[in-house]
Order: sequence, then structure tokens, then C-alpha cells
Amino acid sequence: MSRITTPSRSLSLVGFDADDTLWKSEDYYRAAEKQFQAIVGEYIDITDPQLVGHLLAVERRNLGIFGYGAKGMTLSMLEAAIEMTAGRISTSDIRRILQLGHDTLRHPVQLLDGVREAVAAIAADYPVVLITKGDLFHQESKIERAGLHDVLPRIEVVSEKDPATYARVLAEFGVAAENFVMIGNSLRSDAEPVLELGGWAVHMPYALTWAHEQEHGVDAAHPRLRHVSQAAQWPQVVAAIAADIAAGAHG
Amino acid sequence: MSRITTPSRSLSLVGFDADDTLWKSEDYYRAAEKQFQAIVGEYIDITDPQLVGHLLAVERRNLGIFGYGAKGMTLSMLEAAIEMTAGRISTSDIRRILQLGHDTLRHPVQLLDGVREAVAAIAADYPVVLITKGDLFHQESKIERAGLHDVLPRIEVVSEKDPATYARVLAEFGVAAENFVMIGNSLRSDAEPVLELGGWAVHMPYALTWAHEQEHGVDAAHPRLRHVSQAAQWPQVVAAIAADIAAGAHG
Repeated sequence: MSRITTPSRSLSLVGFDADDTLWKSEDYYRAAEKQFQAIVGEYIDITDPQLVGHLLAVERRNLGIFGYGAKGMTLSMLEAAIEMTAGRISTSDIRRILQLGHDTLRHPVQLLDGVREAVAAIAADYPVVLITKGDLFHQESKIERAGLHDVLPRIEVVSEKDPATYARVLAEFGVAAENFVMIGNSLRSDAEPVLELGGWAVHMPYALTWAHEQEHGVDAAHPRLRHVSQAAQWPQVVAAIAADIAAGAHG
Repeated sequence: MSRITTPSRSLSLVGFDADDTLWKSEDYYRAAEKQFQAIVGEYIDITDPQLVGHLLAVERRNLGIFGYGAKGMTLSMLEAAIEMTAGRISTSDIRRILQLGHDTLRHPVQLLDGVREAVAAIAADYPVVLITKGDLFHQESKIERAGLHDVLPRIEVVSEKDPATYARVLAEFGVAAENFVMIGNSLRSDAEPVLELGGWAVHMPYALTWAHEQEHGVDAAHPRLRHVSQAAQWPQVVAAIAADIAAGAHG
């Protein structure tokens, strides 16, 4: 009987993004933003070119202090509302914005079509990990409510999805980037840093993308990047990448 | 030459809490709370028995939605201020409370006396990990500013310090609770859950303790619990625990 040695070039870890990859998320943030505009719109003309984009500007200037997530969004909304109305916003409207934060933090967790079956199929063949950024507490709460723990027990909540973070996670798993594939909806967060490290990425766009995530430098034709439109395609594309890795294809 | 086999009973991991164990933290939260009372005190008598403790009550009712940390504290302060003043608080005072949140998130990180030397001495002999709860982004930012990365490269930011969380971290490290010691200032978060799992704990009280952390059921005379008053004592007490573990002492 011959012994099979695991080749050093083999798919060793499959990562999954969470928000807008496994479940709906941006819809709830977008709904909160609409309600924010409606509240502030009672005081000012929100189509004023000087005010359009002010919330995003406040969120961005606060990213280095708050990080990502709904709590930081709520605090930024409060700051933006006070600034945009020059302090005229009422306390009861401040309260409505605080309530938007609560609602966003407690939004229902609805898996996207075919996600459970696709993750389970991949987990049967490869080690898997969920890698998500945002508020630790909120992300853990959503993961629990999603009921995916049986197929996706390993979770990494990270504060930023950059090459350094992916390198740290891969080091913890003892996996080389060349043997790793990340599946997600954001070219900026799920594809670009992984490709930069030498890994593979599967992009599945979501109907909505936060403006901040739209900025990236990924070539859609990158040789280690695959594109799919639904979760049901994940197992097949992962198997194809595994075959490419085994064949020594480097893209 | 004889081969030394690592005994199954040996100290295999030393965990360190961060806030008020490695660096000052509660002082900044307490200062923010004082400023909050001063702001709200411009509207109401904050010594009114009906209002004393209202902020803590709001923070507690929100813990299950916000988790721990300065962003949740700020959102709870805003809610409490509106409730306590029956909506009379001005927008400019709302702004002052938002600023308290910014200040707390950016407080300086000052290591407590002897911490660097004590952690380095222990890290020379045993694997070490920092285990802290709170906002992922804020905790990572403080860890970076503390400059302890060279001696404490492994970090676990967790959303709650309960037995299940410690069990998960220990499983990731492949360490049995009996071979683990946790050093921290909170009997509730750093000692009780670890002792419950069968592990060891070193308690170093801090001058200030948040009311929420004062509730615990730890017997000060627990056989696997040690008490110290300064970081310089950590290496010695850890060595003594290692000896107890090696001797099969189970407390």
C-alpha cells in the first residue's frame, strides 16, 4: 500500500465573509441611513451639495477612533445630525437616532439563498473559518442567531481586513496564503488584501455596497480571482481552485 | 543523554487581563462619569435617590445589545441624560457627552508599575496571551499604544469573560484548564470563570472597580487563587503555581 503524502500545494483553508455574503446586512444600514436623512430633512435641505455626503465624511473621520460597526455608525449619525442642523436638532430627534442604532444592532439575521448548504458542502472537504470585521459583540450575536455554528465553528472578528490581518489569521492556522481562498462580497476587504498576499478570492457581489467598500484597486481579471453570482456556485468554484492549486497554477 | 518528556501536568499558558491590570483604564471611565454627572447636574438634582444609579441601570439594560466598552458607554450616557432630564438636555450638552466618548476612546495608555518587566520575565518561561473584553477596535488600539507587542504578541479580545469563553480560548491553544493561570484585577471576570473550569488565578486588585465587576461569588481563600498587590510579584507567584501544578497539587 502506498502512502499518500499531503502535497504542500493544496487548498488548506476556506474563509467566508459574513455581512452581505452569508446574510443580509447592508440593507439594514441603508434603511437606517434613509431614516437619518428623513429626520435631518425636517430641519434642512438634505439635497444641498454642502450637506450631501456629510454623514459619510463624519463616519470616515471617526473610523480611526470607532472602527466599523453599528455603534460607531450611531455615534457618527448623532455628530453629523448636530453639525448638519447647526445644533437645531431636538432632543426627541436625537432619541430617534439613538433608536436607529438599537434597531440596526437587533436586525433579524436572514441567511442568503443556498448559504447553509454551500458552507456545509465546503466544510465537509476543507477547514473553514468565518472572517468578519465590525463590532465584536454585534458580530458574535449575529453569528449565533444565524445558526451556522455547526458548520462554521471557527470565527475571527477583526478590526480591519488588510493584508496584515489576513497574514496574522493565516499564521494562527499555519496556512500559507497560496493555499487559502476567501469568499466574500467586498473586493476591497475580501479580495484585494488576500490576492496581495498571494492567496485566492471568490467575489460574490451583493446588491448594495457601502460607498467606503467601493474603493479598491482589484483587476476583475486577476488570475486568482473568481466571480460568482450565488452561494450555490461556491462548492464548485472552490473545487476548481483546489485543482488549480494542486496543479501548481499560480494564475 | 536522557530525553525529557513534558509532563501533562505543567503550567502551559499564562493569561493577562489588560484594563486595570496592565494599564490604567477605570480612572478614565470614572472621570467621564463625573463629567457626565456635572453636565446632567445642570438640569436636575443628581443626588435624588430616583436618579442615582440611573446611568448604571441604562448601561446594564444595554449590555446585551452593546456589549462592553466606551462606545456603548457613550450611547448609554446619551440615553440616560435624555431620560434623567426628561428631554430637557440641550443639543450642545449632547455634544459634550459625545466628546466624552471621544476622550475616553483616546485616553493615554500608561502601563502600571513593573508591568513590562513582569510580563517579559513570565514570557521568557511560559507561553503567554492577553485576554481582554470590550470593543475590539479600542482594545487593539490600546494594545498597540502600550508597546507590549514584543512580549505579548497573542491577543484575544472577547465579548464576555465567562467559562464558555475561557474554554474556547484554551481549546484554541490546546491547553487544559488545570495548566492555565489567569492574572487580572477582576474577581468576576479574571478569577471566577477560570477557577470554575479548574484553572488557577492571580488577583491583583486595582484602586477602582466598576460596580458591575464588584459582583462575584469567589471565595478569597479558594485554593487555586493567589493574591498580589503589584506586578513585580507576578513572576514569583506564577513560578509557585507552576511548582504546585507539577507536584499535582489541586488546591
